[in-house]
Amino acid sequence: MPEAVRISLDAMGGDHGPSVVIPGAALALERHPDIRFLMFGNETVLSSLLNAYPKLKEVTELRHTDIAISMDEKPSQAIRMGRGRSSMWRAVQAVRDKEADAAVSAGNTGALMATAKICLKTMAHIERPAIACMWPTLRGESIVLDVGATIGADAGHLVDMAIMGAAMARIVFDLDRPTVGLLNVGTEEIKGIETVKEAARILREANLPHLDYRGFVEGDDLGKGTVDVVVTEGFTGNIALKTAEGTAKQIGEYLRAAMSRTLMAKIGYLFAKQAFDALKDKMDPRKVNGGVFLGLEGVVVKSHGGTDALGFASAIDVAYDMAHFELMNTIRSMLEHDPIDQPA
Amino acid sequence: MPEAVRISLDAMGGDHGPSVVIPGAALALERHPDIRFLMFGNETVLSSLLNAYPKLKEVTELRHTDIAISMDEKPSQAIRMGRGRSSMWRAVQAVRDKEADAAVSAGNTGALMATAKICLKTMAHIERPAIACMWPTLRGESIVLDVGATIGADAGHLVDMAIMGAAMARIVFDLDRPTVGLLNVGTEEIKGIETVKEAARILREANLPHLDYRGFVEGDDLGKGTVDVVVTEGFTGNIALKTAEGTAKQIGEYLRAAMSRTLMAKIGYLFAKQAFDALKDKMDPRKVNGGVFLGLEGVVVKSHGGTDALGFASAIDVAYDMAHFELMNTIRSMLEHDPIDQPA
Repeated sequence: MPEAVRISLDAMGGDHGPSVVIPGAALALERHPDIRFLMFGNETVLSSLLNAYPKLKEVTELRHTDIAISMDEKPSQAIRMGRGRSSMWRAVQAVRDKEADAAVSAGNTGALMATAKICLKTMAHIERPAIACMWPTLRGESIVLDVGATIGADAGHLVDMAIMGAAMARIVFDLDRPTVGLLNVGTEEIKGIETVKEAARILREANLPHLDYRGFVEGDDLGKGTVDVVVTEGFTGNIALKTAEGTAKQIGEYLRAAMSRTLMAKIGYLFAKQAFDALKDKMDPRKVNGGVFLGLEGVVVKSHGGTDALGFASAIDVAYDMAHFELMNTIRSMLEHDPIDQPA
Repeated sequence: MPEAVRISLDAMGGDHGPSVVIPGAALALERHPDIRFLMFGNETVLSSLLNAYPKLKEVTELRHTDIAISMDEKPSQAIRMGRGRSSMWRAVQAVRDKEADAAVSAGNTGALMATAKICLKTMAHIERPAIACMWPTLRGESIVLDVGATIGADAGHLVDMAIMGAAMARIVFDLDRPTVGLLNVGTEEIKGIETVKEAARILREANLPHLDYRGFVEGDDLGKGTVDVVVTEGFTGNIALKTAEGTAKQIGEYLRAAMSRTLMAKIGYLFAKQAFDALKDKMDPRKVNGGVFLGLEGVVVKSHGGTDALGFASAIDVAYDMAHFELMNTIRSMLEHDPIDQPA
């Protein structure tokens, strides 16, 4: 029998806390029966909710914590209050202590990143961890990073991200040499900001064995799936991600309005209902939920704070894949070729 | 009889040159019979094409130019080759010489901006011109700037853009005090990069009479239409714009595929065809074509290079509105309240 994948959960994180985390975990368990959960949170609340999921209860170990980090807590405050004690900290600590292979939290991003940095530490040669997400494209999926952690990332950070993103693509897409592009405002070499041009120069000259650098890509290449990995600084990446999510929602609204405006449209909708359902399913943001923290000494996955059980289950799926396919080792071995000479 | 609005056209610009510019101008003339055109380009080509549009021919003055700036010309090269001689330069020069109220070109953005800066000069107190575009939203439309000219804009530039964007919103949306937001990665005051936080502080404290500063907005606020004017630095703005365009195209593809997959879906499509057509029309990027250069001593509108006649006509519409409603005077009077003390 293969070894179980052990996942620690911040059961109090997110807008809805345990009422989403527990049914989400139950869903993920159906898909991956070899998961074992370590849940941190209010024991009374959690154990009563767990009674409704006997299978989940069987594979879950509960650990009580008194402190839950709220969604608007500042990172510094989250650390002060939560160090060693909050459900968020303890879920991450379980990874550090090798009790879990990956941690999942729907708690606030800043607090979770600060907690993960302090508790797990960054990997050797990595200065700033990044957050990578799966981006649905016309070709399937791409990995996009960073979507919010590395505000003001410089050329060296971008190169590190390219390597870490390629490591993730290697295991997620099962590719030996994933294609990587740098997000820019044009594809010509002279275009864009200095940091991006400098990162491009380094990647081009390094000609890495496990990363096929393809040059600059633009905003519309994200949806096309032009490359397997798109690398950008955190401010721009976060805005691109939210702009895409917003546009998808906007078009969904237009579509709904159009299909209910006339009787003919309503009849058409009924005939095509299956097709619409498939489309809705394809565009469902809950299915691509789960930002992977890259560059830390351990796997941490951030779920959207406002998601439901289905969304939280997707984040657990991501954590499962990262642990199962040994993200950490892949990154470590790819970082050996890092062309950036950075102090540890 | 009211005075005509005089528009100069770079008839050689864009991927398709006169074969798009001339039918585009004819379309715009139908909507605005008071336009008079001044067209720059190869006279032989233009006059033979114009024969098919007698009404347009009647209101158009042709001026021959030998040089057309290609789509991949570097800005410096475009200036060297084109100064005083290219169709692009001459169209902009017509605005400088008060022969035209606005210029429209589908030529390459970098070359057009360089030409406009040198030929028209920037307005007093404006260091860097910006490109503003109309962004379709769930509430109607917003103005978003900058979408590519001010790479690395600082706090002062962002404040200038807020004022110029508000001036444009004032005339386009007929609002006395348009709402303005700064694009950021979160809405809390502590979030984001320093330049954005500094611009926020200046705008908040200035409390300008004709600009209602509403704080930070995020990527998904663009599609919601949370504010009338969204201000951001050119790198991020360009990526946001292209990401939104790419996402819209991607979902369009999904929809097309879904509606042709099964017989039931095809039948449904036929019933709902009118609704689909309305949706397609709503999402048509050609209808919001036309980036307005703000901060120059004259109105210049950039059309997408790859657009067709319908798209080019939209860019002319934008130029018409800007000239007709006196964009320049509105900006000038709003800049009198500029809280930034910048050397002219």
